[in-house]
Amino acid sequence: MKFKATAIAHPNIAFVKYWGKKDEDLRIPLNNSISMNLGNLWTKTTVEFNDFDDDIVIINKEVAEGTAKERVVKHLDKFRNLASNVLKAKVVSENNFPMSSGIASSASGFAALTMASASALNLNLSEKELSILARLGSGSACRSIPDGFTEWLMGTSNDDSYAVSLAPAEHFEIYDLVVIIRNERKEISSTKGMQKFNPYFYARLAEVSENLNFVRKGIIEKNLKMLGTYAEKDCISMHTVMMNSGLFYWEPETLKIIKEVWNLRKNGTECYLTIDAGPNVHVLCLPENKEKIKGKFSELNFEILESKPGGKARVIGESLF
Amino acid sequence: MKFKATAIAHPNIAFVKYWGKKDEDLRIPLNNSISMNLGNLWTKTTVEFNDFDDDIVIINKEVAEGTAKERVVKHLDKFRNLASNVLKAKVVSENNFPMSSGIASSASGFAALTMASASALNLNLSEKELSILARLGSGSACRSIPDGFTEWLMGTSNDDSYAVSLAPAEHFEIYDLVVIIRNERKEISSTKGMQKFNPYFYARLAEVSENLNFVRKGIIEKNLKMLGTYAEKDCISMHTVMMNSGLFYWEPETLKIIKEVWNLRKNGTECYLTIDAGPNVHVLCLPENKEKIKGKFSELNFEILESKPGGKARVIGESLF
Repeated sequence: MKFKATAIAHPNIAFVKYWGKKDEDLRIPLNNSISMNLGNLWTKTTVEFNDFDDDIVIINKEVAEGTAKERVVKHLDKFRNLASNVLKAKVVSENNFPMSSGIASSASGFAALTMASASALNLNLSEKELSILARLGSGSACRSIPDGFTEWLMGTSNDDSYAVSLAPAEHFEIYDLVVIIRNERKEISSTKGMQKFNPYFYARLAEVSENLNFVRKGIIEKNLKMLGTYAEKDCISMHTVMMNSGLFYWEPETLKIIKEVWNLRKNGTECYLTIDAGPNVHVLCLPENKEKIKGKFSELNFEILESKPGGKARVIGESLF
Repeated sequence: MKFKATAIAHPNIAFVKYWGKKDEDLRIPLNNSISMNLGNLWTKTTVEFNDFDDDIVIINKEVAEGTAKERVVKHLDKFRNLASNVLKAKVVSENNFPMSSGIASSASGFAALTMASASALNLNLSEKELSILARLGSGSACRSIPDGFTEWLMGTSNDDSYAVSLAPAEHFEIYDLVVIIRNERKEISSTKGMQKFNPYFYARLAEVSENLNFVRKGIIEKNLKMLGTYAEKDCISMHTVMMNSGLFYWEPETLKIIKEVWNLRKNGTECYLTIDAGPNVHVLCLPENKEKIKGKFSELNFEILESKPGGKARVIGESLF
């Protein structure tokens, strides 16, 4: 038996954000979140368990060391425990999007690692179990396990905090145009930032169930206006909570794009924005407005990453080694 | 007896902001606020009550009409009532700062109008009474009546909502360097914006007494670090509350200046920022750092208005007609 498998998973963009944890170690969040997998972007990961001397982790053609490697090894240990297997592993992982793009690779990375490890060890895990395991690697990775549009049900313990698909990728053809803002500053870790609660954080929690309701409904009813309006509201809310903790992810150009999106919409081109814990602006739109919006931001000399909804994390035949 | 007098008053910059009213008509706020009069900027106003056919209002050499005139006439009526006087008035008012500077002239304008009207009609009013009357013209005008650094005690009724001096202008030599950001958008009226309560507004109220305590203490103890730290916190808080109501006063360049201020501070030049309901950034500093900071922003091609603390609203000999 060959303990080797390869999987692909997509990063995701949250329409209702995850901010604040109930349990740091288990990554149990304080609110549900909803996201869309980004189909044009992916991480591919091959895992082989064999009689290696040590675990070897190669990410984007570089050997991982230190905490980056430890985090992967810790994740592999979970699968070795489940399979009662003590073999060391070789992990090779590649993203088709640059690190400098500001798209977090931890969600797609840990979702792909989870799928590949489970498959390599012939563990017969449910989607729920896979999502729980991915969450332990990186919180939002649980949302990259199911198909298309997913909701992370926060739960209260390790066993009931996982993501489910609200609708498959084909359900609603919307586009995420990521306007890339170069960020010269050192990233603030969102884990560190999230620990800084303040009164605004609790005000956000009071609003978040409304945002969840309308974003979920917007996805199910294919209503971009509903989805977008509440996704924008949720994004402003999260960023203002962060600002009150001294975390400013916005750059001057972020604000420029925010205002451009509002101008476009005011002038009849339907689009909505959301922003993760970084400076890039994600612009959500229907297919018919995609080229016009891309044209507008290209004119302003911004680089754009385009993505449609993506499928679930899945095992593929192709291997990276 | 000649019913004519001229007064001068300074605009003010709030270190702890006023956002949200308990009573719209009486302008009773939902929190105390603390500000500094801007000594280098002023409004001068001459008021004469005489047998004119109608009230005449001339602001910055232009005859005021419509709502701008009505607001002044309504204010004059209060003084006519107090003096049992039915004479019409001529009002001439001038600012030494341009409207396009983004410095609100309503505070200095109504403070000067209040002082001049009271004096012209020989009303012997206390500073408290003058502050209350100024408040009825424009909320923050009450803070431009007393000397230097003032606190608006919110009160609960018309009779106990007024400002007092925490320290005279000479007490603490700090500078406000106003970095002017050109704003091409139509201003959103702060009165209109303030009516939009949201959960974040109440989170702000929960924090504001702490900000008041430390800003007050910072002024009294001449501790710019304490004053500035909490003034910045209060400013971020107000702006994020506004953003959650859809009010974005910041321009991309506002964010650029915010980050420059933090860079300056990180590199050892002590300065703090605050922003009113507009895009300009007010940078607070001690005299010894003033030229360096001005140099920095001049380099970046921003226009700067400089001001030291200003005195109280006062009657002067010079007349504008």
